[in-house]
Amino acid sequence: MNVIERCRLLAQFSEEPGATTRTFLSEPMHQVHACLRGWMEQAGMSVVVDHAGNLRGLYASTRPSARRLFIGSHLDTVPRAGAFDGILGVVLGVALIERLRGSRLSFDIEVIGFSEEEGVRFGVPFIGSRALIGDIDDQLLETVSSAIAAFGLDPKRINEARTGDDALGYLEFHIEQGPVLESLNLPLGVVETIAGQSRFDVLFEGQANHAGTTPMNLRRDGLAGAAEWIGRVEREARGVPGAVATVGRVNISPGAANVIPGSAAASLDVRHADDDVRHCLATRLLRCAEQIAAARCLKVSWEQRLDQSAVAMDSSLIRMLERAVATTGCPIHRMPSGAGHDAMIVARRMPAAMLFLRSPGGISHHPDESVLAEDVAAALDVGMAFLQELERRHA
Amino acid sequence: MNVIERCRLLAQFSEEPGATTRTFLSEPMHQVHACLRGWMEQAGMSVVVDHAGNLRGLYASTRPSARRLFIGSHLDTVPRAGAFDGILGVVLGVALIERLRGSRLSFDIEVIGFSEEEGVRFGVPFIGSRALIGDIDDQLLETVSSAIAAFGLDPKRINEARTGDDALGYLEFHIEQGPVLESLNLPLGVVETIAGQSRFDVLFEGQANHAGTTPMNLRRDGLAGAAEWIGRVEREARGVPGAVATVGRVNISPGAANVIPGSAAASLDVRHADDDVRHCLATRLLRCAEQIAAARCLKVSWEQRLDQSAVAMDSSLIRMLERAVATTGCPIHRMPSGAGHDAMIVARRMPAAMLFLRSPGGISHHPDESVLAEDVAAALDVGMAFLQELERRHA
Repeated sequence: MNVIERCRLLAQFSEEPGATTRTFLSEPMHQVHACLRGWMEQAGMSVVVDHAGNLRGLYASTRPSARRLFIGSHLDTVPRAGAFDGILGVVLGVALIERLRGSRLSFDIEVIGFSEEEGVRFGVPFIGSRALIGDIDDQLLETVSSAIAAFGLDPKRINEARTGDDALGYLEFHIEQGPVLESLNLPLGVVETIAGQSRFDVLFEGQANHAGTTPMNLRRDGLAGAAEWIGRVEREARGVPGAVATVGRVNISPGAANVIPGSAAASLDVRHADDDVRHCLATRLLRCAEQIAAARCLKVSWEQRLDQSAVAMDSSLIRMLERAVATTGCPIHRMPSGAGHDAMIVARRMPAAMLFLRSPGGISHHPDESVLAEDVAAALDVGMAFLQELERRHA
Repeated sequence: MNVIERCRLLAQFSEEPGATTRTFLSEPMHQVHACLRGWMEQAGMSVVVDHAGNLRGLYASTRPSARRLFIGSHLDTVPRAGAFDGILGVVLGVALIERLRGSRLSFDIEVIGFSEEEGVRFGVPFIGSRALIGDIDDQLLETVSSAIAAFGLDPKRINEARTGDDALGYLEFHIEQGPVLESLNLPLGVVETIAGQSRFDVLFEGQANHAGTTPMNLRRDGLAGAAEWIGRVEREARGVPGAVATVGRVNISPGAANVIPGSAAASLDVRHADDDVRHCLATRLLRCAEQIAAARCLKVSWEQRLDQSAVAMDSSLIRMLERAVATTGCPIHRMPSGAGHDAMIVARRMPAAMLFLRSPGGISHHPDESVLAEDVAAALDVGMAFLQELERRHA
């Protein structure tokens, strides 16, 4: 069974019949572990499940106490997901080991399937990778304890999931989940940075009034103010290379066809690989909101909901990945990741790198999510070249 | 008790303690009828409740089979209403009869308190005035039958509410429910036309996508399209004197902060006193939606929900009202009504006219709704001058 077939098989292990929904340590995760364990052992790996629920297959070096390269991604999914987000990175890791055909390297390789990244079951993302770097606080442990116990694991031993300090690095294969590679006609992209995020709730307040009896020039329409601002958000973000800014939600009050909106509460999500650029853009967008509100005699206020810094991938691993891409004949393309990934967490403890595979149609978090067989083959070739260079340097 | 005190007293008869909520033939309507009946009989009127629940006080002429002037408005309210919308017109009618101090005219005056105008209880407005003009169809009768019977009336006799064909006319006093008179520093306005209304639901459809991974130039954001259009709606309506256009509701899908909106469904309400102008503006706004959608690779579609023609008030009664206003020393101001009123229905069967009283703060459909004592006094003076001219012409 090839990589894509394996991913499609694993997608059938779901909490929801006819769809792929697999949250942190849910029942079908047992079946996913069982399948992966079989393939891993077949390839010569020794497999354990740590007490954070991460599935960990070790392909040991010939050397005793060798340093370790991690290759992984997550095994959980969003509700009604596709078959590739996360799990592809684990299945690709196993396939790389299979390609080694039993020959051992001078470093250990651990393929890790994180138990949780999406944040669906408890509203907390990255539980698996946080356990790997030893970042599980008491509050999080309390939240997840009973789920861990119900899965047959011991929450009191969750800290044993923590890895040592001398890891060689972390490599994550992941679908892009966006349209950029496809639009450039490229199979692969080397992630340079995982973008930082700012989130705000921005409230425009005017005066609700009768849609028939209030002339245009005597209105204080909260939605009209928000609409003008949404246009500005789009224009300003377009003017900043690499920036994205999104208004995804607007709550209008009272929200009736024959009543002028008294208020409109809009979400704002701003991302950029450079934190200064992001902060500067977010500040400008809030300033625009103030100007628009002032010109319309509206009141505007906001609350910041998130200010998450960008996380750079390791420059030395990036260059090694790029050389590996070059050996396959693919054009080299560096890009930021607009979405968060386990690599962002793991990067706090070891050098981390990510390789994106093109997402057909840019579709993700949807049953139509897919990946091309030729792109999977290219990614495997890149992975092998990466391992070979690492072996040359390390040996 | 003066007019304002009477309105505030009647506002206490409510289905909801501490608020004024009085729908079609609800229990507290009995108390409203009892109060008004007492004042009417005291003023020399004979009072009946017809089988549509309208309270009707006749101040008979000295002549047998005299023609009849109706003065009225509605007795029902929206939920958590103010004390003046509707009922002020009935209380003012009674006050005018009191001013006659028993002297009879050459025409009958019937003060009518319509049972229903707001459309709250059954989602159907104007039940009282429709009964007066004989416009109750079988479906409506079936809808309201049990409510009529429960109030102690006979739904089978609802057609007896219908008036004859030789009425002199209908005069309605009503609060403006808008800010225009206040902004012009005028107490009174003579309604020229009740504006027509167009309503549409307009759907902008793009592609939902990840807010982090989809660059600005590869987005098809349904909300960004709707927002641009909302700005155009506002600008275009401002460019048409007397027009109002409102987007009061936008439903966004999926409506999450980190997802680019796949679609946005917006309501559109367009009103103008001239039906051609209204149709032309509505068509232009839909054309704008098409242009905006095309430029953004969105799909746009719409459904018309309402196309209600404007209703002109009677030109002869308008001029008579204006002369009456002139006698009080008030400036004469003609204006359209952006909201629907009973006069719009009654105008189908007899000449109809309306006099607006200034709404402080433009506030209506709210407990803070109010009216100034000096404006009520001016309206009474206008009403008396109107009756006097009608008497001179008719006698």
